[in-house]
Amino acid sequence: MTFSERLHARSVAANTCLCVGLDPDPNRLPDSLEGSLPDRVTEFCKAIVAATSEHAAAFKLNLAFFEALGADAVPVLQSVTAAIPSEVLTIADAKRGDIGNSARFYASAILDDLNFDSITVAPYMGADSVLPFLEYPGKGAFVLARTSNPGGNDFQRLESGGLMLYQHVARACMEWQDQAAGVVGLVVGASDIAALRKLRVECPHAPFLVPGVGAQGGTATDVMEANGAGPILVNSSRGILYAGSGLDYPDAAAEAAQKLKNELNAARERSAEGVR
Amino acid sequence: MTFSERLHARSVAANTCLCVGLDPDPNRLPDSLEGSLPDRVTEFCKAIVAATSEHAAAFKLNLAFFEALGADAVPVLQSVTAAIPSEVLTIADAKRGDIGNSARFYASAILDDLNFDSITVAPYMGADSVLPFLEYPGKGAFVLARTSNPGGNDFQRLESGGLMLYQHVARACMEWQDQAAGVVGLVVGASDIAALRKLRVECPHAPFLVPGVGAQGGTATDVMEANGAGPILVNSSRGILYAGSGLDYPDAAAEAAQKLKNELNAARERSAEGVR
Repeated sequence: MTFSERLHARSVAANTCLCVGLDPDPNRLPDSLEGSLPDRVTEFCKAIVAATSEHAAAFKLNLAFFEALGADAVPVLQSVTAAIPSEVLTIADAKRGDIGNSARFYASAILDDLNFDSITVAPYMGADSVLPFLEYPGKGAFVLARTSNPGGNDFQRLESGGLMLYQHVARACMEWQDQAAGVVGLVVGASDIAALRKLRVECPHAPFLVPGVGAQGGTATDVMEANGAGPILVNSSRGILYAGSGLDYPDAAAEAAQKLKNELNAARERSAEGVR
Repeated sequence: MTFSERLHARSVAANTCLCVGLDPDPNRLPDSLEGSLPDRVTEFCKAIVAATSEHAAAFKLNLAFFEALGADAVPVLQSVTAAIPSEVLTIADAKRGDIGNSARFYASAILDDLNFDSITVAPYMGADSVLPFLEYPGKGAFVLARTSNPGGNDFQRLESGGLMLYQHVARACMEWQDQAAGVVGLVVGASDIAALRKLRVECPHAPFLVPGVGAQGGTATDVMEANGAGPILVNSSRGILYAGSGLDYPDAAAEAAQKLKNELNAARERSAEGVR
């Protein structure tokens, strides 16, 4: 199965497009956890996975928070990913981007050794920095197109030849897809609904990874309406991870995940009805 | 001392602007090395450091090749960086770029825990993805502006409002410098000498990290003439690391490093004479 087929299968089977983001900030871990930092991060992430996986189409692990653990990063990542049910997709949010020879080593470490299903990739260095991540059948790479952070406006909206930079990136991604064994997806933040709408028209079949719902901008309704019927993962990290801070944090996370899942599903139904 | 002052001090004391790139490709390690892959990588890098440090203003470690070692990455990085004399600067070639909160964790892991003097950073996500790397007095961040790989042409030369993307990036970097504790440098490949010349005019004091001399394009003469009197590190990786493949590989690396150092110095002298 291709990455897109796996995403479709999971989305249908669990009736969800929710991606749960695992950003284990050491300063925000529940007080009830004990032991070394790597142990607490592992226990926290595994508890969140157990509590939310029924609502999740994917889990996105931001490698920044794991690499902060130094030599413990790899064993913690292995332990957390091993706890994720195989039908739920995994995304290494690594935002790597380097010349071809180096990119191949990043790809091998993350998609092969750590066995993630997909990775986020930065486009600034162009084709040879992205293509090595697309040599893995069954796997995917989400290329940063339009990000939802404040600095996303600094360069991504620069206009050249009638298209903004993020549109140039998306067009290049669609060309790269033609020569790829893996699937090319795009990161498109919920903070710019107009961009999401435009990119969905240009890239009807590409999986979109959408951060920034709620906290940074667009609502579930806006996102699902702009996305239409395209394959999509809507990410929430802090809103789920830190929904509770006491002993009941897994229950609070499950509740927050279920709530967002339901909102997204309801928004998609309204959008589909509007289209009919 | 600021990063720029440290770079200047080392460049003058050792009469060199050479940066030796440590990209230990497992497939190209000398046959004479024995033991596990992490052990061979460590021994190889330490031998290269010992052989070339007298000619080096800096060592650049490409993290892709170290992260490929999995759980051994951090101890190997610690072991190799510990072998680099403190007056020779270190660059983590990590090309990181993520939203502010995540970027802070990358910065802390690389500039604080691993104690690198500087890091390479990708600009696609804008200000809040770069500024966290600039909060460390005495340290620096080299932002990707004009890269020397083939894909560097895909987006970096897109023109918007009379400036190419890499020029917009450089201008933003100069603004960021005004609010930074650390030093903002730029990665400017030797494959586009016109870009190097333009950026040097716009950013007279920013340290430039220049890959791609020889293999990918511009000559030492071209680079030093275009750079003029600005602070510069000219990187060579494979040309030094793999100059020899037998037991004498450290000697071959030392010879290649010395040769390039001398070429760069001679080119700089010719350029300075031309200016007078």
